[in-house]
Amino acid sequence: MKELRIEANGNLGPIDSSRIPRYAGAATFARLPRLDQVARADVAVVGVPFDTGVSYRPGARFGANHVRESSRLLRPYNPAQDLSPFELAQVADAGDMAVNPFNINEAIEEIQQNALDLTAPDADGRSAKLLTLGGDHTIALPLLRAASERAGAPVALLHFDAHLDTWDTYFGAEYTHGTPFRRAVEEGILDTEAISHVGTRGPLYGKKDLEEDQRFGFGIVTSSDVFRQGVDEVVHKLRDRIGDRPLYVSIDIDVLDPAHAPGTGTPEAGGITSRELLEILRGLRGMNLIGADVVEVAPAYDHAEITGVAASHVAYDLVSLLADGVSRDNARMEGKR
Amino acid sequence: MKELRIEANGNLGPIDSSRIPRYAGAATFARLPRLDQVARADVAVVGVPFDTGVSYRPGARFGANHVRESSRLLRPYNPAQDLSPFELAQVADAGDMAVNPFNINEAIEEIQQNALDLTAPDADGRSAKLLTLGGDHTIALPLLRAASERAGAPVALLHFDAHLDTWDTYFGAEYTHGTPFRRAVEEGILDTEAISHVGTRGPLYGKKDLEEDQRFGFGIVTSSDVFRQGVDEVVHKLRDRIGDRPLYVSIDIDVLDPAHAPGTGTPEAGGITSRELLEILRGLRGMNLIGADVVEVAPAYDHAEITGVAASHVAYDLVSLLADGVSRDNARMEGKR
Amino acid sequence: MKELRIEANGNLGPIDSSRIPRYAGAATFARLPRLDQVARADVAVVGVPFDTGVSYRPGARFGANHVRESSRLLRPYNPAQDLSPFELAQVADAGDMAVNPFNINEAIEEIQQNALDLTAPDADGRSAKLLTLGGDHTIALPLLRAASERAGAPVALLHFDAHLDTWDTYFGAEYTHGTPFRRAVEEGILDTEAISHVGTRGPLYGKKDLEEDQRFGFGIVTSSDVFRQGVDEVVHKLRDRIGDRPLYVSIDIDVLDPAHAPGTGTPEAGGITSRELLEILRGLRGMNLIGADVVEVAPAYDHAEITGVAASHVAYDLVSLLADGVSRDNARMEGKR
Amino acid sequence: MKELRIEANGNLGPIDSSRIPRYAGAATFARLPRLDQVARADVAVVGVPFDTGVSYRPGARFGANHVRESSRLLRPYNPAQDLSPFELAQVADAGDMAVNPFNINEAIEEIQQNALDLTAPDADGRSAKLLTLGGDHTIALPLLRAASERAGAPVALLHFDAHLDTWDTYFGAEYTHGTPFRRAVEEGILDTEAISHVGTRGPLYGKKDLEEDQRFGFGIVTSSDVFRQGVDEVVHKLRDRIGDRPLYVSIDIDVLDPAHAPGTGTPEAGGITSRELLEILRGLRGMNLIGADVVEVAPAYDHAEITGVAASHVAYDLVSLLADGVSRDNARMEGKR
Amino acid sequence: MKELRIEANGNLGPIDSSRIPRYAGAATFARLPRLDQVARADVAVVGVPFDTGVSYRPGARFGANHVRESSRLLRPYNPAQDLSPFELAQVADAGDMAVNPFNINEAIEEIQQNALDLTAPDADGRSAKLLTLGGDHTIALPLLRAASERAGAPVALLHFDAHLDTWDTYFGAEYTHGTPFRRAVEEGILDTEAISHVGTRGPLYGKKDLEEDQRFGFGIVTSSDVFRQGVDEVVHKLRDRIGDRPLYVSIDIDVLDPAHAPGTGTPEAGGITSRELLEILRGLRGMNLIGADVVEVAPAYDHAEITGVAASHVAYDLVSLLADGVSRDNARMEGKR
Amino acid sequence: MKELRIEANGNLGPIDSSRIPRYAGAATFARLPRLDQVARADVAVVGVPFDTGVSYRPGARFGANHVRESSRLLRPYNPAQDLSPFELAQVADAGDMAVNPFNINEAIEEIQQNALDLTAPDADGRSAKLLTLGGDHTIALPLLRAASERAGAPVALLHFDAHLDTWDTYFGAEYTHGTPFRRAVEEGILDTEAISHVGTRGPLYGKKDLEEDQRFGFGIVTSSDVFRQGVDEVVHKLRDRIGDRPLYVSIDIDVLDPAHAPGTGTPEAGGITSRELLEILRGLRGMNLIGADVVEVAPAYDHAEITGVAASHVAYDLVSLLADGVSRDNARMEGKR
Repeated sequence: MKELRIEANGNLGPIDSSRIPRYAGAATFARLPRLDQVARADVAVVGVPFDTGVSYRPGARFGANHVRESSRLLRPYNPAQDLSPFELAQVADAGDMAVNPFNINEAIEEIQQNALDLTAPDADGRSAKLLTLGGDHTIALPLLRAASERAGAPVALLHFDAHLDTWDTYFGAEYTHGTPFRRAVEEGILDTEAISHVGTRGPLYGKKDLEEDQRFGFGIVTSSDVFRQGVDEVVHKLRDRIGDRPLYVSIDIDVLDPAHAPGTGTPEAGGITSRELLEILRGLRGMNLIGADVVEVAPAYDHAEITGVAASHVAYDLVSLLADGVSRDNARMEGKR
Repeated sequence: MKELRIEANGNLGPIDSSRIPRYAGAATFARLPRLDQVARADVAVVGVPFDTGVSYRPGARFGANHVRESSRLLRPYNPAQDLSPFELAQVADAGDMAVNPFNINEAIEEIQQNALDLTAPDADGRSAKLLTLGGDHTIALPLLRAASERAGAPVALLHFDAHLDTWDTYFGAEYTHGTPFRRAVEEGILDTEAISHVGTRGPLYGKKDLEEDQRFGFGIVTSSDVFRQGVDEVVHKLRDRIGDRPLYVSIDIDVLDPAHAPGTGTPEAGGITSRELLEILRGLRGMNLIGADVVEVAPAYDHAEITGVAASHVAYDLVSLLADGVSRDNARMEGKR
Repeated sequence: MKELRIEANGNLGPIDSSRIPRYAGAATFARLPRLDQVARADVAVVGVPFDTGVSYRPGARFGANHVRESSRLLRPYNPAQDLSPFELAQVADAGDMAVNPFNINEAIEEIQQNALDLTAPDADGRSAKLLTLGGDHTIALPLLRAASERAGAPVALLHFDAHLDTWDTYFGAEYTHGTPFRRAVEEGILDTEAISHVGTRGPLYGKKDLEEDQRFGFGIVTSSDVFRQGVDEVVHKLRDRIGDRPLYVSIDIDVLDPAHAPGTGTPEAGGITSRELLEILRGLRGMNLIGADVVEVAPAYDHAEITGVAASHVAYDLVSLLADGVSRDNARMEGKR
Repeated sequence: MKELRIEANGNLGPIDSSRIPRYAGAATFARLPRLDQVARADVAVVGVPFDTGVSYRPGARFGANHVRESSRLLRPYNPAQDLSPFELAQVADAGDMAVNPFNINEAIEEIQQNALDLTAPDADGRSAKLLTLGGDHTIALPLLRAASERAGAPVALLHFDAHLDTWDTYFGAEYTHGTPFRRAVEEGILDTEAISHVGTRGPLYGKKDLEEDQRFGFGIVTSSDVFRQGVDEVVHKLRDRIGDRPLYVSIDIDVLDPAHAPGTGTPEAGGITSRELLEILRGLRGMNLIGADVVEVAPAYDHAEITGVAASHVAYDLVSLLADGVSRDNARMEGKR
Repeated sequence: MKELRIEANGNLGPIDSSRIPRYAGAATFARLPRLDQVARADVAVVGVPFDTGVSYRPGARFGANHVRESSRLLRPYNPAQDLSPFELAQVADAGDMAVNPFNINEAIEEIQQNALDLTAPDADGRSAKLLTLGGDHTIALPLLRAASERAGAPVALLHFDAHLDTWDTYFGAEYTHGTPFRRAVEEGILDTEAISHVGTRGPLYGKKDLEEDQRFGFGIVTSSDVFRQGVDEVVHKLRDRIGDRPLYVSIDIDVLDPAHAPGTGTPEAGGITSRELLEILRGLRGMNLIGADVVEVAPAYDHAEITGVAASHVAYDLVSLLADGVSRDNARMEGKR
Repeated sequence: MKELRIEANGNLGPIDSSRIPRYAGAATFARLPRLDQVARADVAVVGVPFDTGVSYRPGARFGANHVRESSRLLRPYNPAQDLSPFELAQVADAGDMAVNPFNINEAIEEIQQNALDLTAPDADGRSAKLLTLGGDHTIALPLLRAASERAGAPVALLHFDAHLDTWDTYFGAEYTHGTPFRRAVEEGILDTEAISHVGTRGPLYGKKDLEEDQRFGFGIVTSSDVFRQGVDEVVHKLRDRIGDRPLYVSIDIDVLDPAHAPGTGTPEAGGITSRELLEILRGLRGMNLIGADVVEVAPAYDHAEITGVAASHVAYDLVSLLADGVSRDNARMEGKR
């Protein structure tokens, strides 16, 4: 019932775990305040419990809360990036978007609208940045629509996944977890000079899949490439390609090997490790990250929260990047005055 | 690769488990022949891998194959009913209906059509009887439509479930796993003089739920009633109510206590035991059973196949009742000649 | 982010699950409002994440949140008691007491003080009633102290458990999960004319355990008694013994058979079923229940939430009894005016 | 490293759990001394880690140690039988028989010889009584051979199981877990006036199975009979049939419903509860029990030790019966002097 | 019931997953046709459900069907090898060999005979190539006998395993899962100039194990070597050693670290990753692969199919290599005409 | 019951697994003799079942026996270090220290005293070296006190862990699993010239954590450093720093990635692999190792013993290092005579 929080730099931070046990109280992301507990948020963590778009194992509707539950162990200082994200920015947990599980089209519109609402600019023209916890990958489309609308331009995309997710239709359905990025290209909301998959592997339907994907503009860094080229070279190439464009990062947790992320719906062997993924993300420091998601965590297939813990650490480093960006934005605005 | 089968009475039966290990070979229901391996089937066991209608834990799309896998231990003689179902009738596994996971309405139509196809009368006017393995409870509606069409009249219904499944809509959706029997009443395909829930328990949305349910004509035998009145009295009342009307039996595996059936989507404590359920089913011997389903087995939540084994035994006793009916039909037809 | 709630009778009820999916949003008990969202509570559900008092498998510190998570399926009308608890009384989730895991004595004092704070009479002299989710059984002692203080007298006790919990010390420690009721008798906070164990079974240290327990005043209804005498006779005897004394009900979930409650620390075979437990609780309708707890849920040993679901249903029927009491109190006060 | 034991009546008992935590130290059965720590044993608990005779799920080779691990919670006084088994008799854990997993015939001979060695009469003509933890049911045959040899006559048998285990051969093999009792009848080591199955259920290969079984002399009390007739009537009939003949009790843990014993190799739905089994066993008090086994615990399929706990309680009540018999034997011998 | 298949190049391929959901229908390997559905097979995938040869955890008898179930996600184009195996060759699922679990010697003979039958040359002298799914490693011996007989010469061997499997006897038994390759050397069916273990690690019985193994001709690439030398160097050495000899690849799934393959019987820490294993296999492209097996998958110890998925991907790359070989053979034959 | 052991070099070794199945008999570490079965021990493996010091998931009290159970597969020759530890030294299992779970301070004293007793020098001045299996990390403090006392000087420390464990207090408690090394520095029992963490990662409370840690003298090799620098460079630096000082190695199993060690209490993503950990340990060959521990194995969160197997292999390589040291000590003493 007590809510002893760490506060710093004018921002309301997480519950103080040296005085309130980590296992006590409600599981907001990283034990951060709810959105209704803060005046405004620079970075909002929001859940989208939706998995009607999956083609194999369902269950990602329980993903966001699972990642929150697994995030109780997160602490406020990120030594790998040498920053304290919750000091640099006001980060808050915006709860879940409640969307219709029985109607994909309606759900997609609801998500898009919710994302726009959460990122509506304030009087000073400042928009919260979103870190979204899925849900299945279908949700990336409306999130990209909102991100692009807020950015006022097509956005660059880094897409971590075992799969391309640029297929056309399944059973005649256009909006599924295997198709969001094809739709996004078709809708013109991606900057096709700066879009790339990372961590792909496993069989495809045909060579045509690769050809079409390439035609859309995607670069591919396979799991094998990460292994053979090493993290630093991969990061170098990605930064080169993307530069300082507004960047959206979408992470399907199945980019990790099933050993690191069993709790997902379409596992593929031969994946990257959680260490590799975290190292790559840290390599994005300083880029112009405007939004991100972590999707496809299916808790019914998880064990001892290893998928949830991996996803929560990934989300934490994304929040760190977003908060760092807020800090740089603020410094820039300060400079302008 | 060998397929040593038991044959009796002109019917092709299961693989002989004293010569081919039970764990070898493909898992058809009870190791019975596939539909394409027999000339015709009197009883067809068919799967409907569909769970887009669920409101809580998904996963029943994997249910039918899980029940088949758990049915490897079934043997050909049913001592509880003192009959050999696979001798009395040709029973075969018709495989799975492949239906669209992204469109409930389309899926319902596909299921209805598939059920009609599988029960199309032959030249002698004989129809196969269906035992359907779900899938979520949404599928009961198209199955009842087909059953009623084949019966040429509204059918009696015994509905085993923790829940009433007569709610109206969820999120505006009419066709979900919580609404099939309201729709069926509305469509006039149930004989409302002879419909009853068995095993219900747990909280409802309001007293109105019960009142509406009663208005539709349903009787209710709660889990508490089964406990307090005993199996024999329950069976007596149900037989009294239903008589020799054409009867469809729909079994949501969550009618069992979660101890007996953890692998399901909306568990409620205080349920009946698998022994009670089997005893009630055996009490239906001699009634005019025309079709049945076993639904809502969600394997991701099962442990050591205890839900699968319970469902497979329930299905086996249903097949026994159906085969016994075939035998009586045949005897009647013989008598007519 | 939407919080569409059911409201009735001036009370703020649970989130409306026909419009906001059950799996969305934070898991308060039964999706009820937080204590800070209501003006006052008649019944408060509070968690005590504490398990330093266990002698075998630890983990009940995660119990309260697990029961909350498993309570998402609860609905607002209780047909078994024919009442709508959240209409009869304002019920709210008070969150967790944050107590020291490294110091049992300090923790006990914190729990007692928190319980007194939560039940502090308002200007009208009305006290909230507590339903506490453990945590291990150590917490029953401070909860009984607070209940007795609020009642202004020693209280009657119904203790559902596989064990007596009236042992003296373990390793010299007086305050553990095996000793709370001996301490409570010694402290004079129990009305020893009206205290009883229900559901006990399994081996003891010696015959002396039973003799001492009897000397303290406890009656015993074993699991075998429940089986042989039936629920109605057990209820009859308990009501006879306790009458209208202020009554506290303490439920160790291990009173259930391990089949029904694997997720607990000291399981014993041969237990009662969840249906029996629920039926007994419903038999307490109309008694003077002043507080209750459900303890010893250890999620690391649970499977598919079957222990959590059983505990949440048990808690729901306890809340129903408490709310019914509030309603009767209110009627009595109305009558007095 | 400390081994503080309870001693009483000249017998070395279990580790004192109020001073040495239950989770500390090696897991002998009920924390009793090893056979090499006592001068002689009246009752020896021995493991037979062998499962080469199984026809479906293997893994019972790990059963004995799993039951021992699950027996850490057992205490020295049995209130259900009102006796302290470890005071009435010297009970010890004899460890495991090490038998060949690659040669069934050799293994059976080793088991028989080991059983004879463990029960070799001492100078006073006193033989230890064996409680054996399996292993699969194949081991019952050599154990019955040894029991019969020590009894000097064919023995009565109570066989608790879902299955008859009187089949003839599997894949041409005579000695498997499905055939021990047919072999035992053929070898003349059973008193066919007094042999009975309890708890059977589930499908058979044919009606012939029942006819042959009856011809061998077996009575059958099905799981349904236990449910419908009640424990007391079942016990009454069994006692009537067996009288004071030397009695061997063989318990396949799959006699329990899969809800109570998921951790076994050939589960069948509709089984008895652990409470029913324990009540029946307690009803055998005073009969001439000369040996017993608990078999078919397959830990890889267990969850949270619920099968192990059930088996350990069953074993504890069997040890209680054996120790009570020792006590009566001793009293008789005292009387003779 | 629909079986919409992909067909290409005259070969019947897998079910079309864009029209029939992956979770629907029977689980043949990669959803390929059964052997009885095609005119002839170039590559046959066959299961051997047998685990009587294991010395520790049993359960591999369920391995083949588990790998099939986990292979539902495989797609028809292999980008890592840039080929479509089911276009290059007719691949079919030959079902399971039904062998005697109670007699190792008989089982070995049955396996050998079945393998010879499946690879019997057709009128054109073309033999199907076998990819066998175990079962335990005992089966490698009869499979090597058949492979050598079909090759008309001793064969080269790449053996991926944590263990050497060249021990002599266990409990006097010659044919077990720890001894197949010693037997194979003794029988002269291996080309001892070209045999190597890959991935070994963990303690041995003595230095003599290594000395004998070396004397038999085996090279060893330990898990540590893979880590330190890298995949390319390992591949280079293996190709150098083996050249274009007829090569058999035998993969014990325990070559993977337990993190990647928990579902196996004798796990050893410090293993290779699934990515390393797949990269090495892909490095074998163009070698003269004549047969392969994937063994020791024990599903009872698997979680969320991570072992099954790893094994299915490994099998898929092996099938790709075999199909590529068929294609080259065909091209060669075409060239000859 | 048979105990056929390997003996060599005057030392009593493990049970011979070629004659007694690995799954038979009690689980001492590596099937070694108990301490009471040998005249004296050079290396003693002892368990400390204690977890009262944990701040998040408890359960490590079951860790030592879980590691022993998982050590049944260990064999007597270590090829990675090319030595036979049980020949080089008499290694024995000393069982468990029985310490008070309800009083941390008392427990710490008991552990310290027990460690001193177990390492009391014999007449020749030879002390057994301890390899301790936890238990939570709190126990490292009393173990270091004893090690330092026996060494007669502050000791060097290699601390493998995801966390620093140099925090000050939790909830006011000084002695917890997050604070042992701060206490040890304060007590002057560490040689602060030669102390280092290895494998750390994950968020901290603040930058101050690192600054204080550095001030205490700790070096840090993060998980990222191991990944980027490689095992050999890490080993080189550690050896440089520590030289031939008396060295204690403390391994929190959470140093491994959760994929390799799910069964622990405070998992952090991005960890090292079991192969990396084993390679680093093997790199310590020849250093002056005087004691070691492996802690924080929490079996309730393990799956298929993968954490247990990793811990047992880690322990085995530590025992190998200790035994090698004994051998060198003996050689030195021989040389002196």
